[in-house]
Amino acid sequence: MNPITVVVDAMGGDNAPKAIVRGAVQAAKDHPVKIILVGEEESIKQELDRISYPDGSIIIHPTTQQIEMGESPQSAIEEKTDSSIVQAAQILAAGKAEALISAGSTGSVVLAAARHIPRIYGVRRTAIATVYPTLNELKRKDYLALMLDVGANIHSSAEELVQFALMGAAYVSNIRGIEEPTVALLNIGEEETKGGEKMKLAYQILKKTRNLKFHGNIEGKDIMRGIVDVIVTEGFVGNTVIKTLEGAANTMSHLGKIAFKTKLSWKIGLIMLRKGLQALKEVTDYSEYGGAPLLGFEKMVIIAHGRSNPKAITNAIKVASKCVRDDLSGHISSSIKDYEVETAREFYQMVRESD
Amino acid sequence: MNPITVVVDAMGGDNAPKAIVRGAVQAAKDHPVKIILVGEEESIKQELDRISYPDGSIIIHPTTQQIEMGESPQSAIEEKTDSSIVQAAQILAAGKAEALISAGSTGSVVLAAARHIPRIYGVRRTAIATVYPTLNELKRKDYLALMLDVGANIHSSAEELVQFALMGAAYVSNIRGIEEPTVALLNIGEEETKGGEKMKLAYQILKKTRNLKFHGNIEGKDIMRGIVDVIVTEGFVGNTVIKTLEGAANTMSHLGKIAFKTKLSWKIGLIMLRKGLQALKEVTDYSEYGGAPLLGFEKMVIIAHGRSNPKAITNAIKVASKCVRDDLSGHISSSIKDYEVETAREFYQMVRESD
Repeated sequence: MNPITVVVDAMGGDNAPKAIVRGAVQAAKDHPVKIILVGEEESIKQELDRISYPDGSIIIHPTTQQIEMGESPQSAIEEKTDSSIVQAAQILAAGKAEALISAGSTGSVVLAAARHIPRIYGVRRTAIATVYPTLNELKRKDYLALMLDVGANIHSSAEELVQFALMGAAYVSNIRGIEEPTVALLNIGEEETKGGEKMKLAYQILKKTRNLKFHGNIEGKDIMRGIVDVIVTEGFVGNTVIKTLEGAANTMSHLGKIAFKTKLSWKIGLIMLRKGLQALKEVTDYSEYGGAPLLGFEKMVIIAHGRSNPKAITNAIKVASKCVRDDLSGHISSSIKDYEVETAREFYQMVRESD
Repeated sequence: MNPITVVVDAMGGDNAPKAIVRGAVQAAKDHPVKIILVGEEESIKQELDRISYPDGSIIIHPTTQQIEMGESPQSAIEEKTDSSIVQAAQILAAGKAEALISAGSTGSVVLAAARHIPRIYGVRRTAIATVYPTLNELKRKDYLALMLDVGANIHSSAEELVQFALMGAAYVSNIRGIEEPTVALLNIGEEETKGGEKMKLAYQILKKTRNLKFHGNIEGKDIMRGIVDVIVTEGFVGNTVIKTLEGAANTMSHLGKIAFKTKLSWKIGLIMLRKGLQALKEVTDYSEYGGAPLLGFEKMVIIAHGRSNPKAITNAIKVASKCVRDDLSGHISSSIKDYEVETAREFYQMVRESD
């Protein structure tokens, strides 16, 4: 098969460019993939000089501008047109690559993508999806579930939530090979009357959407259980939930400070467990999932974690390649189209009936 | 001092009436408090016959109707006027008691209270507040923080959020004895421009509200840290966050299923720690906090946990009595009034300046 070309923002993330370059090179070694590294030429070259890689698999696209920490993403994306993320987005938009990876700030990646890359026809809003580990009550091969939107938008309409459901289901089918992923709406109660007008409407539409296995509403307490494959929510809520879980995990590792000061047996227990918690952390390691896909663009965009190590970048490239090969955009596009046809049909039906 | 009268819904909660009656009797033994037990006379009497209590401290107000599980709260509250929660709310409204405790369903308690008990003058919406344990980075005497609203409303305006901040601060001052509690807005970023128009407006008003120590925005990951005393959010988000944390805690106790199957040392560590986790659970036990206050009514209403044991009910009565004695409603009322005066002053200032 023809190698896929992935454009990689070499300057984004805490460990750039070193971790990015190394991760990209590893991906090129593992699979037939072409990589365009976008960023400051000298420092990328320096890294490349230290490692070997298949001939012709890596190209450098040099840039001259840097987006600084704390800079407003809006003005940075607009003004610094020769920054690595803007150039990477333009390379993708021009068709010179089929997927984009960046470990830069979420805001910059979202804005650069929104500015340069067209949305899939019919998609109203793109969404950031995040993969997270669960207790896997569904007994899937992996322990993962997907939540979206976790922050591309603040609020979303009922119809946008429905589109998120379709996009999330398409992604999960693609990446995890689950044929009929189940989708739930995150709400403040399980009953279909809960959560206000918008949530009630989203529930009603999802319930009758064909080719979608709608589980119904689930509450916050069920997020970690893994009783569905996809959880749909508005960006404000999704972002807050993900950060709350991150905080809860941090709290667990600080528990010693509260309760375990006095009792020796607890202390020993915690020490014995520490390696277990470490192992668990590895199971639940973001670097395994290859970052958060930005769904709804014609081309694949993946936001890697800011703290990405080389492995995370390698995996992000792997995930992106798989999405391109399996034509994820095509699947999202036809799933959105099917939904629109269905809606139109219902509308005509209503009109006919009212005649 | 004169004993305070607390009306207690004896039929609400999983362990009613037994746990409720026992908890109420204990409260009457511990403190000079009068208690009206509302509910099915025979079963309350049966419980009372088994225990001794100070003469005249307990009165039964008999009722004949029961709200069943799964019944719609709306119609139940409207139709079953001789149910324990409706009667309890009416007793409170009639001035025959100064506080109400119920371990019944949140929906029923909120609706019964809203129907019968007047709001404090100026308060637009009542809010459910919940007390939860933190890592106490503020180094308070206890490890607690307050979050509101966690579900009395779905969405709230910026001005309602500001009122929640004032009510939450008043409650924390009262119950925890913290003179200048710090208050934060839960948002998707710390910058004051985050979270959309409503959150931006709430931030701006809170920043200039006098007699309020506004910390700014905090994110989900900081909820457990205990860097503020009060966290303000809309009901949908607060409810989801609290349930997410509950789910995360459950997940921790199921971790064994994932990672700890194989390694003996981890297993032993978990077993050694189990008692520690149990102890921690006790520290973080809802029964210590006496339930969730419903803030904004002229009279004190506390929603005890559905799984309340006698101790939880005793503590809820204790907390309610303290709020009444310290005139919490009075403090909320004057804090809302001060805010309104300030707003009016600013308005006149604006008018004068524009002349």
